[in-house]
Amino acid sequence: MSEHTARRPVLGTAASAEIFTRIITHGPVSRLDIGRLTGLSQAKVTKTVSPLIADGFVTVGEHAEHAFPGRPVRPLSVVPRSMIAVGVKVNADEIFAVTVSLGNEVIGSTRRRLTGHAPETTITAIVKSVTALVDQLGDDARFLTGVGVSVSGDIDTADGIVRDSPLLGWTHVPLGSLLSERLGLPVIVENDVRALAKSEQWFGVGTDADSFAIITIGAGIGCGIYVNGDVVVGAHGVAGEIGHLPLGPSDALCVCGRRGCVEAVASSHAIRDAVCQGHDDPTLTLADAIRLAHEGDPSAVDAFERAGTAIGAAVATTVNLFGPEVVVIAGEGVMDYDLYERRFREEFLAHVFGTAANCRLIVRRHTFVDWARGAAVAALREAISVAPGGPSD
Amino acid sequence: MSEHTARRPVLGTAASAEIFTRIITHGPVSRLDIGRLTGLSQAKVTKTVSPLIADGFVTVGEHAEHAFPGRPVRPLSVVPRSMIAVGVKVNADEIFAVTVSLGNEVIGSTRRRLTGHAPETTITAIVKSVTALVDQLGDDARFLTGVGVSVSGDIDTADGIVRDSPLLGWTHVPLGSLLSERLGLPVIVENDVRALAKSEQWFGVGTDADSFAIITIGAGIGCGIYVNGDVVVGAHGVAGEIGHLPLGPSDALCVCGRRGCVEAVASSHAIRDAVCQGHDDPTLTLADAIRLAHEGDPSAVDAFERAGTAIGAAVATTVNLFGPEVVVIAGEGVMDYDLYERRFREEFLAHVFGTAANCRLIVRRHTFVDWARGAAVAALREAISVAPGGPSD
Repeated sequence: MSEHTARRPVLGTAASAEIFTRIITHGPVSRLDIGRLTGLSQAKVTKTVSPLIADGFVTVGEHAEHAFPGRPVRPLSVVPRSMIAVGVKVNADEIFAVTVSLGNEVIGSTRRRLTGHAPETTITAIVKSVTALVDQLGDDARFLTGVGVSVSGDIDTADGIVRDSPLLGWTHVPLGSLLSERLGLPVIVENDVRALAKSEQWFGVGTDADSFAIITIGAGIGCGIYVNGDVVVGAHGVAGEIGHLPLGPSDALCVCGRRGCVEAVASSHAIRDAVCQGHDDPTLTLADAIRLAHEGDPSAVDAFERAGTAIGAAVATTVNLFGPEVVVIAGEGVMDYDLYERRFREEFLAHVFGTAANCRLIVRRHTFVDWARGAAVAALREAISVAPGGPSD
Repeated sequence: MSEHTARRPVLGTAASAEIFTRIITHGPVSRLDIGRLTGLSQAKVTKTVSPLIADGFVTVGEHAEHAFPGRPVRPLSVVPRSMIAVGVKVNADEIFAVTVSLGNEVIGSTRRRLTGHAPETTITAIVKSVTALVDQLGDDARFLTGVGVSVSGDIDTADGIVRDSPLLGWTHVPLGSLLSERLGLPVIVENDVRALAKSEQWFGVGTDADSFAIITIGAGIGCGIYVNGDVVVGAHGVAGEIGHLPLGPSDALCVCGRRGCVEAVASSHAIRDAVCQGHDDPTLTLADAIRLAHEGDPSAVDAFERAGTAIGAAVATTVNLFGPEVVVIAGEGVMDYDLYERRFREEFLAHVFGTAANCRLIVRRHTFVDWARGAAVAALREAISVAPGGPSD
């Protein structure tokens, strides 16, 4: 694959990055509103925006809106394809990859099954997927800004290292440097749920809400938390581990080795295992478990209800601690949300505290693109971030 | 009580407030370091600091330190008594009040028993305590900036309303306006644990840590969380409700009406009730329960161990969700922390996840001043806060 020069805007200061971010997340938006939203002066907004317009990242609205009373407002928007990132979500048995523009448009996508999940096998597959998507871009490949890869587990984003991913069985894999060498592009490695939360912050509920939690149901139970202006990352790289809160039955053994974790009854594996055990048939799949539960099979219904109970307690716990404005329920598991819902809601309502219960609960229809989009957005965000502590103007 | 003019610095912008805050929390500190810490330009720092020096809020170090290599550094510090606040903690049976300077010096303190906790009785007692402390200040009363009052429960800080305090049995009490009318001073009303966290952010672990949780053990079990640059307040006013996470025995009935709350076994009332029940003696006090546990009485030992178990699970839960750098254990209950400690640590270690376990655990020796100091710091902070969305320069 040929060497690319990564496309990035020149943003010297944190204030400039904040202004550009507002145009990305809230455009079309007037200079006046940017000033109001960021608390920065009009002079600073104008000074930041001019080179972004000149370099083709930002465009001025053609159809002037008229403020009443006042001068015509020419709102600012991003040029959607002025920056493009590839996002890759790594699972144990397959990878998803998408190309996403700064305008949150999905340009291309691909899904590749893995024959195994050793690091070398996975890296080769990622390189193939990314290369295919880049080729598809044609001339637009010059707008590529980087690649984001999202993996479940404990990730050192600063150094691009997968410290510990129980799902993949990886420890201390320097995925970022291995991939950027092969791809000739900047690569950012991020925890999958945090990446999803960052994508939600830019293009989802985060555009309207001052705080939110996104809970993912599936092979694992994860949680991304956005509060006080940023996604919570954890001082030691771990945060949002809602799947390992001790809210499950105290005797249930989790894959992590602990007892009583939410995932011990609520992960898709735990649900399948419970149904296999109920039917004394180790060959049943998750699809079988879902089918049986829809047919009213008692052991399958019970397995989903135990999962819903644990997830409901976990969401109430998150809400009681953080008091988010919105909670988004997402992940593969929401495709069968009806199987969890009754017990989920009962348990949530039984334990949520005071006015924290006023948070909005949203169930997000899952598509296989979502996880990979999160990784792409992590790469786009990284490309416009400025190290803290620099000068402000 | 005579009318005071509240002493406040002129800080037009959020950036100016941030610069002043850095001097308060990190002084003595050089202009260069303030620029580095805040990301603001030297010009902005100098422009902000000059009027603060002229008005007597900030002082320039007399003993110049020599940077190597470079010019002598004359670090900036706050003038400790340039702002003084009174802080009041309201309990069901007594109030504590302290006078605290901007230099975090406790100038005076008082403790007053209450004959009841109806709002009118409590307000009269607060007015008496505050008046006594203000009189004690003599000439320094001209530096008074306001009064902070901290109450457990759901507090609307913006409007100074105690929305719901189960401990006091208050709902919708406009405490702020009732008190400021009587005192002739600005009054800020804050949730007690949030106030403690804000005080910890300014003058405690927050000066060195990027994130922390402060867990209080006592009549209630509370939690203040500091992450992404601020204390978490909750979109609907509720956050940090660690006492009402469903981590206690599922049949234990809590004073809040729910089942399975941490407080249902871990509050000082729950512990006393369990020991009363164990001895079939409703007259036993918390002091009796503590004495019996120290003597090895099985029902008393068991009551504290059940409390320690629930608190350990709750702290692990908090740590797994947001991965703080430091956890401070505080509150009246730490005076007998040895009775909780073994089961607390076992349960914490059994459930804390991955590198989140690397957080530092600090047990803070409790003094009766702490809670009231938190309320005073809330008042000091309020006096230098600037509404967001204003111009930045």
